[in-house]
Amino acid sequence: MAKRTYFEKLARAQKRNKSLLCIGLDPAPEALPTPFKKRDASDIARFNRAIIEATADLACAYKPNWGFYEALGVEGLKALEKTIQAIPGNIPVILDAKRGDIGNTAKAYARGLFEVWGADAVTLSPYMGLDTLEPFLEYEDRGAYVLCLTSNPGAEDFELPNRLYLRVARALAERDSRRNIGLVVGATQPRRIQNVRKAAPDLPFLLPGVGSQGGSAEAAVRGAWGDRPGSVVVNVSRSVLYASKERDFAQAARQAADDFRHVLQQAIPRTCSRSEKPCESELTPAT
Amino acid sequence: MAKRTYFEKLARAQKRNKSLLCIGLDPAPEALPTPFKKRDASDIARFNRAIIEATADLACAYKPNWGFYEALGVEGLKALEKTIQAIPGNIPVILDAKRGDIGNTAKAYARGLFEVWGADAVTLSPYMGLDTLEPFLEYEDRGAYVLCLTSNPGAEDFELPNRLYLRVARALAERDSRRNIGLVVGATQPRRIQNVRKAAPDLPFLLPGVGSQGGSAEAAVRGAWGDRPGSVVVNVSRSVLYASKERDFAQAARQAADDFRHVLQQAIPRTCSRSEKPCESELTPAT
Repeated sequence: MAKRTYFEKLARAQKRNKSLLCIGLDPAPEALPTPFKKRDASDIARFNRAIIEATADLACAYKPNWGFYEALGVEGLKALEKTIQAIPGNIPVILDAKRGDIGNTAKAYARGLFEVWGADAVTLSPYMGLDTLEPFLEYEDRGAYVLCLTSNPGAEDFELPNRLYLRVARALAERDSRRNIGLVVGATQPRRIQNVRKAAPDLPFLLPGVGSQGGSAEAAVRGAWGDRPGSVVVNVSRSVLYASKERDFAQAARQAADDFRHVLQQAIPRTCSRSEKPCESELTPAT
Repeated sequence: MAKRTYFEKLARAQKRNKSLLCIGLDPAPEALPTPFKKRDASDIARFNRAIIEATADLACAYKPNWGFYEALGVEGLKALEKTIQAIPGNIPVILDAKRGDIGNTAKAYARGLFEVWGADAVTLSPYMGLDTLEPFLEYEDRGAYVLCLTSNPGAEDFELPNRLYLRVARALAERDSRRNIGLVVGATQPRRIQNVRKAAPDLPFLLPGVGSQGGSAEAAVRGAWGDRPGSVVVNVSRSVLYASKERDFAQAARQAADDFRHVLQQAIPRTCSRSEKPCESELTPAT
């Protein structure tokens, strides 16, 4: 039997938990709830475990961002290791590392993130070109979300001029022979999400920027929706992690996650945009 | 007294060692010389220490690439920590991590790489825009080399069309009010190096791609040369690290480094290209 791919694993988790919600595990020591007194790497690992345990039936993926762990040195990366181990095996781990490098270095990154750190999918930067992505794409059972359009003001500097973001989307749509490429598309710009969907009709999207960053979940999901299972996953970080800074933080995170889950489920188009078939086979709306 | 900046530290090391050579510490376990039997992270740290001890009077900087350490998990990153500690304090460490992320994440990366991991300078990706670089630039005494034109075939995909690489160069030249920005410019394309030098007359360049990647050192240095101290640093990795696979590996690395050092010194223009003043005050040619 062929190994399940990342996108199959994602689609199953989405169906099982009736959820498009990915929870971003981006914990900063100074932002931890008050019960965490030490605010060190071991507190980060304990906090993440509590968040994962409180939300594992509500999320379709977890996305730790490498930067928050690297910032705490070797101890921080041990906390990342523990965090990934705490994520149930049937929920995929998207390791948000935005890697991009050439030749042997790209191979080392791919081998490390997938085989050693245990990522089901990673995020990558397209700047240096398609050959820098190839070592990741050779892992057919894993996923590679490539930066396309981001939700920060700096998107105006290089992504938008000459429609670089759409050229990235088209180039990756062409390159997706193994069906393991996705795009990172900021959720704050619904009209542009639709542009990307037109440029890459068949690629799955990872949408960050909902919640603290102010993106409208509904418009984003509608604009991004595609035919493929796992075509949309929406990341929320701080609005879930820090729903309460007090002892009830895990319960509050659960409530916030469930609220997001419902909003996202409601945003799923009732008929698939292009095929005009009912979507129930892919994903059952929240009840 | 103001703290010495990265580029001042680099220029001093270049003058002291009469060298433009940066040695890339990119060790893969399978490539280690035969005396390293275990080929694990501790061997990597021992190998790096031997290379550093053999070349510390010939190099102006060392550049460990994060990917090779990350690939070995937490133990690999401990080897990176030990490697950085083994580099003499008067030779700058360029941590080649090609980071690029938004807001709080970028801040975490900058704090981590500079304050926790001990980098004097880092490499960054410009794709997501100038605001993603700002948290690094706020460290006025450190350096940020931003990817501009790279030496891999994939440069044709996004860097070259619409001259993105020149727009990146111009945008960063404008942004360099703190004089702590440099550009990564692949050494394999001398004519294009000259284009970047015109677009960013005053920015220092980090030139990878010499040695294994086949770039001509001489043409690259001439094209890249600028008026500022530290305006050019040339990275060589494998051709130094693996000059011999036998017991004499450190001695062979020293010889290879010295050969590169001489070639690079010979390539320094005898008069500064724009100011037409002799360059001796900046850097004394090899004798």
